[in-house]
Amino acid sequence: MKKNLFSGIIAYPITPFDKQERVDIPLFKKLLERLIQSGSHGIAPLGSTGVMPYLTDEEKEAVTEAALQQVKGRVPVIVGVSNLTTERTVYHAQFAEKAGADAVMIIPMSYWKLAEDEVFRHYEKVASSISVPVMAYNNPATSGIDMSPALLKRLLKIPNVTMIKESTGDVQRMHYLRRELGEDVAFYNGSNPLALAAFGAGATGWCTAAPNLIPDLNHQLYEAVQANDATQARTVFYQQFDLLRFIVAKGLPKAIQAGLTIQGIEAGYLRSPLRELDAQEYAELEHILSAKA
Amino acid sequence: MKKNLFSGIIAYPITPFDKQERVDIPLFKKLLERLIQSGSHGIAPLGSTGVMPYLTDEEKEAVTEAALQQVKGRVPVIVGVSNLTTERTVYHAQFAEKAGADAVMIIPMSYWKLAEDEVFRHYEKVASSISVPVMAYNNPATSGIDMSPALLKRLLKIPNVTMIKESTGDVQRMHYLRRELGEDVAFYNGSNPLALAAFGAGATGWCTAAPNLIPDLNHQLYEAVQANDATQARTVFYQQFDLLRFIVAKGLPKAIQAGLTIQGIEAGYLRSPLRELDAQEYAELEHILSAKA
Amino acid sequence: MKKNLFSGIIAYPITPFDKQERVDIPLFKKLLERLIQSGSHGIAPLGSTGVMPYLTDEEKEAVTEAALQQVKGRVPVIVGVSNLTTERTVYHAQFAEKAGADAVMIIPMSYWKLAEDEVFRHYEKVASSISVPVMAYNNPATSGIDMSPALLKRLLKIPNVTMIKESTGDVQRMHYLRRELGEDVAFYNGSNPLALAAFGAGATGWCTAAPNLIPDLNHQLYEAVQANDATQARTVFYQQFDLLRFIVAKGLPKAIQAGLTIQGIEAGYLRSPLRELDAQEYAELEHILSAKA
Amino acid sequence: MKKNLFSGIIAYPITPFDKQERVDIPLFKKLLERLIQSGSHGIAPLGSTGVMPYLTDEEKEAVTEAALQQVKGRVPVIVGVSNLTTERTVYHAQFAEKAGADAVMIIPMSYWKLAEDEVFRHYEKVASSISVPVMAYNNPATSGIDMSPALLKRLLKIPNVTMIKESTGDVQRMHYLRRELGEDVAFYNGSNPLALAAFGAGATGWCTAAPNLIPDLNHQLYEAVQANDATQARTVFYQQFDLLRFIVAKGLPKAIQAGLTIQGIEAGYLRSPLRELDAQEYAELEHILSAKA
Repeated sequence: MKKNLFSGIIAYPITPFDKQERVDIPLFKKLLERLIQSGSHGIAPLGSTGVMPYLTDEEKEAVTEAALQQVKGRVPVIVGVSNLTTERTVYHAQFAEKAGADAVMIIPMSYWKLAEDEVFRHYEKVASSISVPVMAYNNPATSGIDMSPALLKRLLKIPNVTMIKESTGDVQRMHYLRRELGEDVAFYNGSNPLALAAFGAGATGWCTAAPNLIPDLNHQLYEAVQANDATQARTVFYQQFDLLRFIVAKGLPKAIQAGLTIQGIEAGYLRSPLRELDAQEYAELEHILSAKA
Repeated sequence: MKKNLFSGIIAYPITPFDKQERVDIPLFKKLLERLIQSGSHGIAPLGSTGVMPYLTDEEKEAVTEAALQQVKGRVPVIVGVSNLTTERTVYHAQFAEKAGADAVMIIPMSYWKLAEDEVFRHYEKVASSISVPVMAYNNPATSGIDMSPALLKRLLKIPNVTMIKESTGDVQRMHYLRRELGEDVAFYNGSNPLALAAFGAGATGWCTAAPNLIPDLNHQLYEAVQANDATQARTVFYQQFDLLRFIVAKGLPKAIQAGLTIQGIEAGYLRSPLRELDAQEYAELEHILSAKA
Repeated sequence: MKKNLFSGIIAYPITPFDKQERVDIPLFKKLLERLIQSGSHGIAPLGSTGVMPYLTDEEKEAVTEAALQQVKGRVPVIVGVSNLTTERTVYHAQFAEKAGADAVMIIPMSYWKLAEDEVFRHYEKVASSISVPVMAYNNPATSGIDMSPALLKRLLKIPNVTMIKESTGDVQRMHYLRRELGEDVAFYNGSNPLALAAFGAGATGWCTAAPNLIPDLNHQLYEAVQANDATQARTVFYQQFDLLRFIVAKGLPKAIQAGLTIQGIEAGYLRSPLRELDAQEYAELEHILSAKA
Repeated sequence: MKKNLFSGIIAYPITPFDKQERVDIPLFKKLLERLIQSGSHGIAPLGSTGVMPYLTDEEKEAVTEAALQQVKGRVPVIVGVSNLTTERTVYHAQFAEKAGADAVMIIPMSYWKLAEDEVFRHYEKVASSISVPVMAYNNPATSGIDMSPALLKRLLKIPNVTMIKESTGDVQRMHYLRRELGEDVAFYNGSNPLALAAFGAGATGWCTAAPNLIPDLNHQLYEAVQANDATQARTVFYQQFDLLRFIVAKGLPKAIQAGLTIQGIEAGYLRSPLRELDAQEYAELEHILSAKA
């Protein structure tokens, strides 16, 4: 487990729609290419940023194939395959593997809260149906389940569950995880405003949609961390802090779509009920982005 | 709005599965018939109890049609049609109307938290695409959104949004809603352990899965309320309180399936990742049910 | 335990101050006399309403003595004697008993969160140092400790701990308490907006500052409950609901002081840092009180 | 404001009691001397660790004087002077200033939740009654009030309110504060398990009781931060993480008293209702402390 395929800046593309709210695959490929060109160390299609839960099975398959075709092995790709039912999660995990994904990411989606044992068996069933590594993703705000450190430790006993992504936004949780799981376990930060503290705590990587808008600042933070330069890391972090807060507060798909539009990059439309930022939010984002320039 | 089609005990059937986790329509019809025979004043298929979010579009359609065929107009039927996207919600709402539903129930499902305006436009779009009444359903624990009284008030301005179902489990919220929305608005309690307090607050009806297991006690409570007999209502409520707490704590689909099995009634299987109650929970439920006998 | 000295409407006087923020004992007596004249079934000086924690030891003693002198045995009196340290709680409990109090009320005040065993021993030590009954008071919002039903059950094993006052504002907690503690245990509602639901749940009494402002409505609610008339209870409750919400939202001492002033009754000053309601709040309260007239 | 008297490790002594639960001043001086000898950059008597709220006015005065006599100007001293009433806070602030304190620390204690304006006027009144600087301390877990960044910004406009101590335990709050208040404002971390992240965020100092038990590790962390060595800071932090978590989880006065006893240092008794750690907790602490050795 010491060697991780994924480290550094793992970038999340949005899934753009056309005016009729259909997935726009050609535009998706263009936006994804930008993430590669700007130096992302990994690509994660069908994440929360990619509004995966709002897509049909067919759309998810099309996005998965498009992502792998576009990346062409230049960086590793981890595909989101989460679903409410175990059967559908197995289906999408197997589809991703066949399409060439290097790993899959699974959050325990829930409508009815799952008991720990139900979560465990869900992961076990899915992980045993594929050969690629699984990143277990904890984000109670979207999944409705807060996986305890004890449960995460148990999940790591499943052979190909090898990575933990934490998005509670609580750095103490991250410290505790590292103490409990040991230094060798790869853990990833999924909470943008926690980027500095998470790297400070020893995170292997940062799963983020921010490189759609500010890739240079994101990479400068990682480079300062690699160079063991805490002062520089802090300086660079505060330069991007307002944007990180904004995109989380407004919702990643909406905020990234608006930010790209502000930057003059075609970003398509959103799927209802999600709606574009209002004029005031748009102006606030313009202000934040211009302050970075 | 003073005359409501729905009042009293509105019963929620489970959606049973066969051993291969496929929806078992014949068994669904049998279980639904029991709810009618035991005196339910309304039937609500595809609710949370009916694990609606875990079903495919085709399965939802089959359950909707089966419910309406079985009920045959004996009591009013309200069908759950919620979906993450507006497009799919419109689709299922229209399907339910064509199939003969008397009303539809919509909870603002969310993955990305919706702004109030997004919620409003979602309801507006769906309600305007059908002619039957809409019950707006607030349950932050499952939807991830807590609709404020102000938003509910706004939703009621949409012509065919005529009913509010509240499941926060907070009686103060119910009091406040009634003060804000006025006495004429029909509001329904969806929190089982709040049944007594909600009727005390003036609720029009109780949306509940409990009649699958204890229909007589549920109806006795409503009759005591109708008879303005607070003492009897309290007595009957405490007789069913343990069961109401249990089914909520363990999750309605799992608890109802187990309770039916204990009562010797075929109830099928659950769909993964949901799993049956464990032996200890099963024993606890047996104890509670036998204490009622 | 079946016969309780306290039942019905237990009224909480404020502790008024003069312009120099010194306790105004003569005014306190006048305000307390109003509560008796308007029919209160019990009087509770040095509650939260009486800003007990803001008083010196000497002031608490003066208020205790003044209350008992003024009441002169016409109704039972329960005195608040809570303190951060066990030693001071014993001191004030013994003082209250000697002064003639019928009972004492104790909330487990905390700065450092207390373990369940620390809470238990605190109550045990204080209760064993006096002969009058103790009302154990649970209000996590002010005390910082939420006493579990299991802990309350344990406290009731201390011989003279005979009453439970619940102010979490959650009627489900009240139902659970009654199921766990048995019908014979006297429990009191301390959450004003929960008054209807609590009586519906079987509460023995309502501990409230509202009789300072609207004694008739408070008593009408209790009378409707006694007459087993749920419809009348609901009607009367909604008539006072806005006021009950207001006084809780703004803080009882401030809201009662303002309400008395609006009603033309001298109510003195507050002790800093507490400050009078602002003009907008004052206007809102005027509106609510005039709607009752 | 750029030059701060206080920076680095600001150590909090406990207030020890004798067997009769009286404050033990000679022992207090001995324990405080240890903190100076081990290199603390500042001393903070009458903090939460020093159970300030459990002391009488006379005891607070005795502790204040003893602290200043013992320190004799070797390091700066900041004295806790918080009280529920404004009048008593002024009193203790003036006492501390006259006794020679370099600064005072004030948390807005509350029983009744204070409005923002009440908090502001409380600080304004107290600060204007003294000449030494004031550290505004935010810790909703003990005070019951969470001071917003906007309120803290407003407090900093009071001339001698120059320092902010944050103990919410949320590093994102700390980032936000620094962005809002500017780099020149001195902010201090009061949440032990957040020590690494807070220094990473740019905190000026760490207010902590940990130096009573593990001064070397505390100072090594600060030195690594000063040396801009993030890797070393992380290594040293994880070495002390278990202890930091433990003392917070169990309550600082109890945990420090037990830890000192384990290390063979006389630490006196606690004041009821606080009670010593139980045998299991004691064993756990022994294990943690020996792992550090």
